[in-house]
Amino acid sequence: MRRKEFAMEEWHEIESFLSEMTFGVLGTVGEDGYPNLKPLNFVYTDGALYAHGSKIGEKIADMKRDSLVSFSVAKEYALIPSYFTDPVYACPASAFFKSVIIKGRATLVEDLEEKARSFVSFMHKLQPEGGYDPVTLDDPGYVKQIKGVAVIRIDPDDISAKFKFGQNMKGAKREGVISGLEKRGLELDEEALRLMKAYCPHHKED
Amino acid sequence: MRRKEFAMEEWHEIESFLSEMTFGVLGTVGEDGYPNLKPLNFVYTDGALYAHGSKIGEKIADMKRDSLVSFSVAKEYALIPSYFTDPVYACPASAFFKSVIIKGRATLVEDLEEKARSFVSFMHKLQPEGGYDPVTLDDPGYVKQIKGVAVIRIDPDDISAKFKFGQNMKGAKREGVISGLEKRGLELDEEALRLMKAYCPHHKED
Repeated sequence: MRRKEFAMEEWHEIESFLSEMTFGVLGTVGEDGYPNLKPLNFVYTDGALYAHGSKIGEKIADMKRDSLVSFSVAKEYALIPSYFTDPVYACPASAFFKSVIIKGRATLVEDLEEKARSFVSFMHKLQPEGGYDPVTLDDPGYVKQIKGVAVIRIDPDDISAKFKFGQNMKGAKREGVISGLEKRGLELDEEALRLMKAYCPHHKED
Repeated sequence: MRRKEFAMEEWHEIESFLSEMTFGVLGTVGEDGYPNLKPLNFVYTDGALYAHGSKIGEKIADMKRDSLVSFSVAKEYALIPSYFTDPVYACPASAFFKSVIIKGRATLVEDLEEKARSFVSFMHKLQPEGGYDPVTLDDPGYVKQIKGVAVIRIDPDDISAKFKFGQNMKGAKREGVISGLEKRGLELDEEALRLMKAYCPHHKED
């Protein structure tokens, strides 16, 4: 689904998830034909995804040869054991998760102003408590560092999202998962329950 | 680094990590030239990585056209704020993480015995507490299900691993990170501290 195809509320959920998640996996196509995957911290801002790294890395070489890339951001909330819904077979074992996949074109950002802005966004996201001098090109210490680091911008061509929280489950199966999660009480189970209710077509809360 | 190039101890750490992690990201090359990424539960067993899914998914179509794939398994343990090591600049902000990347050839498993074995491994990993009838081809209920699901096997050509826990840090910077993590006390900080010590070339514990 492209961004413009998301309802406003869905898009808000996707942006919140991208803000909350600190890292994702960049996929490029390697010279040897294998996809190259690399986990990277990222920030999604101004309609683009930014990441940074070494100027001589494999991902930069891949991007220069082929600018088509993908970026995956995923979080697993709960493994759903089969016995929540089926006393006999293992097959219903499943997982609840959020996944956002961005396909786009990667550019190596050369403009120092844009590079600096991306670091401001990066720090604002990953170190919101501050504790550093403002990132600005007026500071020669920053200029040197910013010049030395590669900044990648991915302009999305397509954004797809799957938030799987039992939306298709009904009746006894749904009740089985709800009571199973309530009893289990792992760290993320409460949040998984909340999301089951929030995303269920018949149980919209907000 | 290929598997055979890992020291036994390193390989043990990698296998432990693959056992502990429930999901990773499969990368294939799409027909449109973009890498296709998909988060999937997986099991690494008998020298291969297994995942499963719908028989009509995009990843299956990609694999049939081009069997070269990659699989990324990554966990972030700690964001390291710049002020742990630098009172002025934002640049040292970093993250400690484990990342394993498997490049290999993907095969759609057709042999029912191998498919069944992969589900046994899957359940053993993801639902170790049991709570289901044993997965066996003697049970017609399982035969039907196993036939209906696509099982992918990835035979690794190359396995690389990066466990980044400040191995290159020395002196005051290293002490700054240690005392910073000790004071911060987020959920994974204690484990990050343990791994800093375990992996430091000068502080090998085991």
